[in-house]
Parts: sequence; structure tokens; C-alpha cells
Amino acid sequence: MGATETIAKWIVDTSYEDIPPEAIRVANESCFDLLGVILAGSTQPVGEIIQQYVGDSGGSTQATVLASGLQTSLSNAALANGTMGHALDYDDFGGFGHPTVAIFPALLALGESLNSSGRDLLEAYVIGCELGLALQHTTKYAQMEKGFHSTAVIGRMAATAACAKLLGLDQEQTVIALGIAGSMAGGVIHNFGTMVKPLHAGLTCRDAVMAVEFAQRGFTAGHQIFEHPLGFTTPILGEGIYDLDDMAENLGNPFRVQDALIIKKYPCCGGNHAMLDSLFSLMREHNFTWEDVASAEVDQSYLSIVMLYTEPDDPLKGKFSAKYNVAAALVDGDVNIDTFSEERINNPEIQDTMEKVTTRVLSKWEESSGEVLKGLPVRITLKDGRTFEHVTARDMILGGAKNPWGFDSIKGKFEVNAGLVLSDERVAETVQTWSDIGEVTDLSETIRSTLVGADQ
Amino acid sequence: MGATETIAKWIVDTSYEDIPPEAIRVANESCFDLLGVILAGSTQPVGEIIQQYVGDSGGSTQATVLASGLQTSLSNAALANGTMGHALDYDDFGGFGHPTVAIFPALLALGESLNSSGRDLLEAYVIGCELGLALQHTTKYAQMEKGFHSTAVIGRMAATAACAKLLGLDQEQTVIALGIAGSMAGGVIHNFGTMVKPLHAGLTCRDAVMAVEFAQRGFTAGHQIFEHPLGFTTPILGEGIYDLDDMAENLGNPFRVQDALIIKKYPCCGGNHAMLDSLFSLMREHNFTWEDVASAEVDQSYLSIVMLYTEPDDPLKGKFSAKYNVAAALVDGDVNIDTFSEERINNPEIQDTMEKVTTRVLSKWEESSGEVLKGLPVRITLKDGRTFEHVTARDMILGGAKNPWGFDSIKGKFEVNAGLVLSDERVAETVQTWSDIGEVTDLSETIRSTLVGADQ
Repeated sequence: MGATETIAKWIVDTSYEDIPPEAIRVANESCFDLLGVILAGSTQPVGEIIQQYVGDSGGSTQATVLASGLQTSLSNAALANGTMGHALDYDDFGGFGHPTVAIFPALLALGESLNSSGRDLLEAYVIGCELGLALQHTTKYAQMEKGFHSTAVIGRMAATAACAKLLGLDQEQTVIALGIAGSMAGGVIHNFGTMVKPLHAGLTCRDAVMAVEFAQRGFTAGHQIFEHPLGFTTPILGEGIYDLDDMAENLGNPFRVQDALIIKKYPCCGGNHAMLDSLFSLMREHNFTWEDVASAEVDQSYLSIVMLYTEPDDPLKGKFSAKYNVAAALVDGDVNIDTFSEERINNPEIQDTMEKVTTRVLSKWEESSGEVLKGLPVRITLKDGRTFEHVTARDMILGGAKNPWGFDSIKGKFEVNAGLVLSDERVAETVQTWSDIGEVTDLSETIRSTLVGADQ
Repeated sequence: MGATETIAKWIVDTSYEDIPPEAIRVANESCFDLLGVILAGSTQPVGEIIQQYVGDSGGSTQATVLASGLQTSLSNAALANGTMGHALDYDDFGGFGHPTVAIFPALLALGESLNSSGRDLLEAYVIGCELGLALQHTTKYAQMEKGFHSTAVIGRMAATAACAKLLGLDQEQTVIALGIAGSMAGGVIHNFGTMVKPLHAGLTCRDAVMAVEFAQRGFTAGHQIFEHPLGFTTPILGEGIYDLDDMAENLGNPFRVQDALIIKKYPCCGGNHAMLDSLFSLMREHNFTWEDVASAEVDQSYLSIVMLYTEPDDPLKGKFSAKYNVAAALVDGDVNIDTFSEERINNPEIQDTMEKVTTRVLSKWEESSGEVLKGLPVRITLKDGRTFEHVTARDMILGGAKNPWGFDSIKGKFEVNAGLVLSDERVAETVQTWSDIGEVTDLSETIRSTLVGADQ
């Protein structure tokens, strides 16, 4: 049995009972968190454009666009919700870029059309996410150095696996769906810091629902999308020493969801988060402000290839600028949605403070040494001559498995995000309904009654 | 000015008057030919699935799906017409895979919604096609060895350039549209010989109209999609010695459309066409049949990487099998739409004849020698001991610039193809209207009145 067939068999054979409860719990938190992020993202410029586009292009009433409540086709609903979910770069990260925004909006649209339960959705989410995590684990970010956005390319396969599970495709159909998705995978890093990055998530979700719909309707496709040299893996992830058979045979052994996902506290590229945690820790401990600072130095991963902008000139680029994030954090004492506004990015104090920040990108080889694995330092020198340094290891970022943020904080984030478009009463109702997705009996009922257009 | 900006400027600045009349003439023939191929493709299994899918997913009445006459969104019309146009692999080829099916269905949908003239469509077609041809010429099929389908990946940029021209985007918007399209590009060769290959064409057309719609609506995207190392060219086409600046600066110098496109006489992979021309030439000259043949030997290009199947077990795979095509040609004396049916692929005489065919794939290095550039031989040995050999150089394939098929033959092909879904009267009317696309004053009127659902 080839890798693709093994993977399809695992998708079909694995069920809720096989999944560790901790993976389900973490999946639930990430999906709940994303719902709030989608609602907040609907107010962003790219969120507005995608909703207008979907509204104008229309579609059968198969699924719901959050926030507006627009009823449209499966593919359009997945496109809009996926794009809105990544508009702020505030959705969880880890593993293969942004797992939840690559998968959950697709499942939400499909699950609504199928009257699925929340438990079925979580099962499908974990199964799809595991495939993506295993693929990333095996190929070790190979696609990133080639220029492909992992959320978009690995996400296509993960989301399609999830949708195949939720739709109940058989093994052969699952092979076909993955084969189709492999030919839909694309999305390049050059577009980070522009509206196309969130669009990548929307396109990923749209393509996953389309791939399973086509497979269900009798499409044919290649049967070796993972292992064929002209399939998905080599062209997109690159040739490597990785062993796809081993990956396929060990799916779910162990499950990785519960360890991989990190809830974001800051609406910017995940590459900033350890750095921001360190910076805020130093600010709290030593009680200084931007006016006290003479210089700030931050080391960055070689994978910060995605942090493209040293002098960002618009809010989206600001999300991919270590310099801007450090400066904004120093001046504002916080990094939140408003940090990435025209007003803040043009703020003279932040602009001046950016000149005090120096960044150093480590080489891949430097970073592979044991020393650096502990994390990358942030160094602050104050005008009075004092210097401080702090290191936050990646696996100790607040919001991850080893340093969980806690449900109350996640709920607080949700309330702020959802509150941008819903009334307090509706936010409370939404928290009630969606904070335990496994208890939802029919996604179709829940999505229509609780989230969208309900205040109108 | 970087390559992308130079390209965008050329797209905006170039107009009908700058294009050689011969390029317009060839473009017109290829687009007319494709119209018939789309109509024929609507009857194929993948054509039926895509029409059902688009019908079910619905959409605003912005453009028309040929054959059925379904009114749907721009993106769905482009998706359906593009997929149907490649269902038979009977559309023209040359340059970057299948230029016309990557571009024309997108322009047809967009042009209908804009009430464009046929002249505007041909202008946009040539401009988009030139970009694709220049990119392929410069990068020398690099993407193919990596595993990407040129129609799908180079086609995304060509079709987007064409749509940007037709929509009248300005230079900045054109840069953005190309930036978006670069993140939509994908499609792998493993799926050749399955329904996903025609889907590649549909997705390409759909994405082109989406990219220009998004650009028009104010999307942001990277500004260096061609030249940035994490943009389109390096991740997808591969790193190379090619000079993108030179390519960009020399767009239209010379125009290549008139030399690149080859009208297909056989509904199968273009890699078979020189071979089939040679074979039929030998059969005509020496008057033998399959029963006389002891063995057939064909050399194949190293680029016949796309001819994946030595023992095809379904009609679509048959299109990508030199062995099957030679055997069917010997037995039937023809290769036409019916050649790729369940009945013919399971035909015992063809199956027996396949055992007489041996194929040899040349190495890239072997093929680069001057000798082989003349073309690849087909050798026939008869049971009576006689041996024949014929070579058809690629540039001498009947249907190309140096050996044109002639408009009467193209018209004959159109009549057969269109006749699969339209009455004789309607076919004649359609030939009258579409054989000179430059004379069409409003695509919206023409497409509604002549082609679709009109017999119902």
C-alpha cells in the first residue's frame, strides 16, 4: 500500500474514540478562538472585500458567511470565512503555519450543509490537522525555504482530509479528494504582509470543500498524490530525505494536535510571539517604558524569512516586521488589533522607536545548535546603562501546550473579538453555545441562531 | 523598474494596433477552434460533473456556461468552460502547454459580463498569451521537470494578464492581479490522464477572473511576484539561469503567438501528435494495416514525462499513452473522440497491437543534440520484413505555423465538435458568428444568441 492509500485508510478508519481527549480539548479551544477571530476579521479591509465579492458572485444557499449571515454556496462560504479568519493573523499557529484557519472554516461550511454535530466536526478537525502536522513534522518546513506558505499548501491536504472525514468519503474517494487537492495547492510567501496571505486561508478552505465535492461526484485523480515524484510532495515541499511511508504508517502515533497549537495573544505573525512575550516580561519586571530605552536587539529564527519588512508602510506589513512589533510594544505596552492601524503605523513615537531596534537573523546552521534551541534572546539597553535579556523558548510561548493561556483568557479574547460585531447579549450567547463545540447537536441550527445577522 | 512592473506596463501600454495581424489571425483560429472543443467537452464525463457542480453551487447571472446555457457567476462560468475546453485534450497546444484553454474561457466570461467586443477579446488574448509564451521561452520548461503543469501554472499568469487587459486595469492593479494569481498557481503532472488535468484549465480560468476582480476591488499583494525569490518564478518554475528582466523588457519583441500555437487534429496529449502524423503518413504511403505490422518503435521526448501510462486502463489515461495511441491509430486508421472510449480502450485488437509497440524515452542530453532536434522517428516493421521510418519535426506538425491545417479543416473540426450538442442549423449559425471573432461587436449578445441552450 502506498503512502496515499495508507493515509486515506487512516482517515476513514480513525474515529473520535481513537483521539486523545486532550487533543479534542485543544481543538475545541482553537476552533472556539477562531470563531471570534473570524468575526473580528470581518471588519478588516480584506474581510469587507471578500464579503462583497462573495455577495456579488452569489451562490446557492448552502452555508453561512459569519458576521453578515449571508447564505451562499459551500465554496463561497468557506472562502469568505477562511479569509476573514486570517485577516488579522490573530488565529492560532503552530505545526504547519495556521492549522485551524486552514481547516475549521471549511468544516463549518460543510458541517452546516450536512447538519453535522459539533462532535463530528471536532473528530474531522483533529484527523485533518494530524495529517498536516505529520507532513510538516516529516518534511521539516522544507516548503518554507522553497517559498510556499505552509498554511496554504500543507493546509490544502489537511483541510481536505478533514472534509473527507466529515463528508464520510470512503477510502477510494478520499484518495481522489487528496489527489484533487494536491493540484489545487499553491500560495507563496512573497504575499505575506498583504491581503493575499489571509486569502490563502480562504482559498485553502474553499478548495478543500471543492475537492471532496468533486470526489463525491465521481471525479478521477492520481492515486499517489503524496509519493509520486510529480505529485504534491516533491514539487511543493521539495525533494528530501523524509520518509513518507513512515509518516503515513505512523499517523496518530502519537497524536500531535494537543502539543502543536498555540493560541495567539497578539494579532501578528507568530514569528513575533516569543519575542513579544520576552519583551513584556522584561517591561513588567523592570518597569521601564519606551522613553527609557536606548536600544533593543532581537535575534530571529532563520525561518523568519517570513518577516519580510524592516520598514513596513502599511498595517498588514507591520504584522510581519519584528522592528515594528518591538517598537509598538515598547510605546503602547501592548500589541492588539489597533496596533495594526494606519494611525499607529504612522505614529511618530513608534517610528522613532523603530530606529532603536536592531534585528539579527540567525543562519539555519547557527540555529540548529543546541544552544539556540532554548530560544532567541531579546536584549534591552536603557539610557541609564542597565541592560536586560530574556529568552522565551518557542515551546514556552504563552498559549501553547506547556504554558497554556487558560480558557478564561481565551474567552476574554473571544468576547473582545466577537464584540466588534455582536451585541453583549449575543456575545454571551455565542460563548455559551460555542465554547463546548462537542455539545453542539446540529451545526446548521447553531450557526444560524447564534452568530450571524442575529442582531439585525 | 522590476520585472513585474515592466510586465504590467507592457500589458497596459500594448494595444491591438501593436499586434502583428498574423498573431490576431492565429489567435482567432485557436479561439474559434476552442469554442467547438468546449461544446464537445460538455458531453464528456468531467464536463457533465463540472456543469452539475456549477449548477448546484449556483451564482449570480454574470456569465454563461456553454452548451447548457446556464447563467452563473464569472468564476463558475470560467471554471466550467475551462474544464469542458480541456476535457478531451483536443484544444490547441504549444508554447506553454495549452494556451487557449487557459485564457479564452476566462476572457469569454469576463467579456460577456463587460459587453466587450471580439476585437478587445483578441487583443487581450494575444497580450496574455505573449506573457505566457515569453515566460516559457525564458525558463525553458523548467516547471515541467519539477512536476508542475505549465497550462496551470504559467497559464495562471497568462490568463490573468489577459483578463487584466480586458478589464482595463491600470498598471498598479495589474501588478496586484499578477501578485494574487501567483499565489493561486498550482497543478501537478501526476494528475495527467485523470479528470483533474482538464480541471486545471478550469481552475486557471476561474482564478484569472478572480484575481482581476480582487485587484479591481482594492486588494493588496506583493509587487514583485515574478522576480522575488519567494514569489512565483523560483518556487514554481525553479531556480534557473534565466533572465526575467530581459524577458520583461522584450515582451512582444518578437510576438510569438503566430508561431507557437498548434491546432490539434487528435484529441490526445500533444506529445503524441508528431508521432501520429508520422504514422499516418507511413500508412498512407505504404498502404499497410495493423494486421501487416510486426512491430512499431517510437522515440519520445524527455518531456514525455507527461506520457505516464504504458498500460492505460481508462480512456483519459489512453490520451497519455504513446503505446495506446499508436495501437489505436494502426487498428482504426484514425484517432478521434471515439478512440478514447471504454469500448475502444478495451478492444482486443488494439490491446493485442499495443504489445507490438515499443517506446524509448530520450534523455534530456540526448535530445539536446543537433541530430534529434530534427524530430523523433517512428519505425514500422511489417510481417513481410519491410521496414519504414518517418520523422515529423515538432515545428512541422500539421496544424502549426509552418504546416497550417487551413481554415476549412478547422471549420470541419468545429462542425463535428459543435454538432455533438447543436443542430446543423445552429452549428452553421455559430460558424458564421464565431469564425471571425474580431467582427463581434458585443460578446454578451453573441454568446446568448448563438451558442447555448438555443435549440431547446
